[in-house]
Amino acid sequence: MSFRDRSAIVGIGETDYIRGAERGAVEQMLEAARAAIADAGIEAREIDGLVPPPAYTFGEEIAANLGIESLRFQTTVCMGGASPTASLQTAAMAIASGVAETVLLTFGWNGYSALRPKPGARREKMGRFPIDDVTRDFYMPYGAAGPVNFYAWIAKRHMELYGTAYEDMGAVAIACRKHAQLNDRAVMKGRSLDMEAYLASRWISEPFRLYDCCLETDGACAVVMTSAERARNGPHRPVYVMGAAEGHPYPADDIPNRPDFFRIGLTGAPPRALGMAGIDASDADFLEIYDCFTYVVLLQLQTLGFFEPGGAGDFVRDGNIELGGRYPVNTHGGLHSQAHVWGMNHIVEATKQLRGDAGAAQVKDAEIGIVTGWGDFGDGSVAVLRR
Amino acid sequence: MSFRDRSAIVGIGETDYIRGAERGAVEQMLEAARAAIADAGIEAREIDGLVPPPAYTFGEEIAANLGIESLRFQTTVCMGGASPTASLQTAAMAIASGVAETVLLTFGWNGYSALRPKPGARREKMGRFPIDDVTRDFYMPYGAAGPVNFYAWIAKRHMELYGTAYEDMGAVAIACRKHAQLNDRAVMKGRSLDMEAYLASRWISEPFRLYDCCLETDGACAVVMTSAERARNGPHRPVYVMGAAEGHPYPADDIPNRPDFFRIGLTGAPPRALGMAGIDASDADFLEIYDCFTYVVLLQLQTLGFFEPGGAGDFVRDGNIELGGRYPVNTHGGLHSQAHVWGMNHIVEATKQLRGDAGAAQVKDAEIGIVTGWGDFGDGSVAVLRR
Repeated sequence: MSFRDRSAIVGIGETDYIRGAERGAVEQMLEAARAAIADAGIEAREIDGLVPPPAYTFGEEIAANLGIESLRFQTTVCMGGASPTASLQTAAMAIASGVAETVLLTFGWNGYSALRPKPGARREKMGRFPIDDVTRDFYMPYGAAGPVNFYAWIAKRHMELYGTAYEDMGAVAIACRKHAQLNDRAVMKGRSLDMEAYLASRWISEPFRLYDCCLETDGACAVVMTSAERARNGPHRPVYVMGAAEGHPYPADDIPNRPDFFRIGLTGAPPRALGMAGIDASDADFLEIYDCFTYVVLLQLQTLGFFEPGGAGDFVRDGNIELGGRYPVNTHGGLHSQAHVWGMNHIVEATKQLRGDAGAAQVKDAEIGIVTGWGDFGDGSVAVLRR
Repeated sequence: MSFRDRSAIVGIGETDYIRGAERGAVEQMLEAARAAIADAGIEAREIDGLVPPPAYTFGEEIAANLGIESLRFQTTVCMGGASPTASLQTAAMAIASGVAETVLLTFGWNGYSALRPKPGARREKMGRFPIDDVTRDFYMPYGAAGPVNFYAWIAKRHMELYGTAYEDMGAVAIACRKHAQLNDRAVMKGRSLDMEAYLASRWISEPFRLYDCCLETDGACAVVMTSAERARNGPHRPVYVMGAAEGHPYPADDIPNRPDFFRIGLTGAPPRALGMAGIDASDADFLEIYDCFTYVVLLQLQTLGFFEPGGAGDFVRDGNIELGGRYPVNTHGGLHSQAHVWGMNHIVEATKQLRGDAGAAQVKDAEIGIVTGWGDFGDGSVAVLRR
C-alpha cells in the first residue's frame, strides 16, 4: 500500500529572506502559510492536516491564527533540518490513508536575528532538541559547541580515508553561489565566489572554511499538499510525491561512538524512496541537497549512489553540479547562498522547477527532482518529486 | 485506503505505578519499552518505527538506549493526554503504508515526584507545551493556573445548561475506584469510595471536588504495534486497530473564545474512527475513557453518542458504567484510581481485556473496546480496538 503518486504539492509560499527581521518566527510562518494557501487556490479552512515545525510554535497556534477549524491530523517531525523533507513522507502517508486530505507544512525562524551569539540578539524560545544535552555535557568540554564542529569530525575522517579534497567541497559552495546570481530571492545575489576566494577564506572549524558553511538568515516557507485527485483541479501543475523516506544514524545521539562514521541518517533512506518511486537517483533532472556544510552535500550524493567513496572530485568536475551540467545541485542557491530555512526552501525550489516556474534558473524540461534533508546529529530524509 | 485492521498491538509493558519514583521519566519509559518488546516476543532491533512521547525525551534517546539501529519512521504527536491514542492512528498509518513494520509507542513521567508544586520536588525538563504561554499570559492573571480550572469552566456551563448533576460526575469516580479494587497495579487498591464520601470531599476548583480529579503518579507504559500479517506469529492474541481518529477544538489555544464551548477535540473524531471500524459506539464491550476529571468522561461519552446533552444521569445509573454493567468504563481504575500515565495505561488495559488477560476485571467475552484521549486545551483522540 505504497503512497507513491497519491499526493502532490499544490501550493508554495515564502517570506523574503533577510538578515534583520522585525517579526518573530511565528508571524513569518503565518505569512508563508497564507501565501502557500493562496497559491494552492484554496481557503485556509480547507486545510485538515498540519505538520508544524519542531520549534518556535505548535500546531494549535498555527491553526488558530489561520482559521483552520477542522483539523484531523497533526504531528511533529523532530529531525532538525531533515524535518521538512521527512514531513513530505508523513503528509503523503496521511493523505494516502485518508486521514487528511489537505496538509500544511511550514518552517520559519530568525536564524540570523534571534540565534546568533551576538550582543543584543533576541533569543526566541526554540523548544528542546536532542542536540542540547549531549552537546552541553559531552562535546562542549572539548571545545565542540555546534554543528560546524560535529560535522567537521566526519568530513576530516572522510578526507583522510578517501582523499576528498578541499576543491571538491569548494565546488559545492561555488555552484550554490552561481545559482544564487540568477535568483532575486537569494541573499547572496550580487556577490560572486570563485575557487581562489573559497580557498582563501578563513577557517571556521577545520576542515571547514567560511564558505563551507551555510548562511544564517531570517524567513519562512510553507507548502500545501493534497490528494492526487484534488491536485488536478488546482491552478498549478501538481508536483507529485513519487517516493519519500527517512533514516536515522545509530546511535543518533553521539557521533564519535558510531561503529560506522559514515552511516548517516540518509544511509537507509534512498533505497526505500527510490524503490517506491521506481527510479534510480541518476534519473533525476536536478538535486536539491541539504547543504548546511559543503561536505555533507558530497556525503549525501555519495549515499544517493552518484559515486563511490573517493569519487566526489570526478563528480563535481566541469560544472556537472551547476546549471547546464547533468546534475544541477541547489538551483536556488541552497542554504549556502539563497537562505537557511531548514531546507523547506529546497522543497519550494523543487516545486518551482517541476512547475517550470524557476525563471532564469529553470532546468530545461525538468521532470524529476530529488530533495534531501539532514538534521540534528545526522538524521536524513529524501523525497522524489515529479511534475 | 483505510488502515482498518492492517495493524495490531502485539506487546504491552508497564512499570509499577507509584508515588515517589527514584528514577527519571526516561529510565521508566525504557523499562516499560523493554517489557513491551519482550511481551511481543521480538528483539528491540526489530523495531523500525517510534512515536516518542511529546515530553521528557526524544526518539533518538529512546532508540539509542534500546539498541534500535534501523529506524525508518519517527514522529511526535503533541496532543497532551490525547497523544497516546492519537499515536495509535499515526502508527497504524505508518504500518499500513509500509513505511514501518513494527512501531514502539511509549509514555512515562514522574507526575507526582517531579511535577507537584511542593518543596524539594525535582523539576524535570518537560519541553514546550501550548498550554504554557496562554496560561501564563491570559489565564493566571485571573487565578486559573491549571487544567482543573480550565475544565471547570466547561463543566460548570454544562451543568447550568443541561442539568448535569454532581452525582453524575460522582458515578464516574466511584466506578473507577471500584474497578481499582480488582487491580493489584492500581494505586487506589484498598481504598474504597462511595457517593457520600465523594460529595463530602473538598472543593478543588468548583464544580470539581477532590474526587473529580485524577491521580498524580509516577510510572511509564509502552505498546508495540506491528502489521496484521506479522501479528499472527506473536505469542499473544493480536489486538487489531479497527479505526482511529483525532480531533482538535477551535480555537484550540483559548477555551473562553470558542464559539461552541462543548465542541471539544473529540467532536469530529468518533464518526471517522467508528466509520472506519464499521461499528457504532454502542457495539463496544467496554470503554477506556480519558479521565483527567470526572466531567470530561461524561462529555466524551456524550460526544461518542451514548446520550444526548442532559442524559448523563440516566446513562451512569444503576452501575451501567461499572463491571457487570453494559458499558464498563475504565476497567483498570483509570487515571482516577489506577495511575496517571497520560492514558497510555488505558491502551494497555484495553489490550489486556481483548486478550482475555484482565484478571478479576475481565469483561466476559470482550471483543471490541473503545479508548479515548484528551489533552492540552481539549485535543481528542479515539481508537476502536478488537481482538
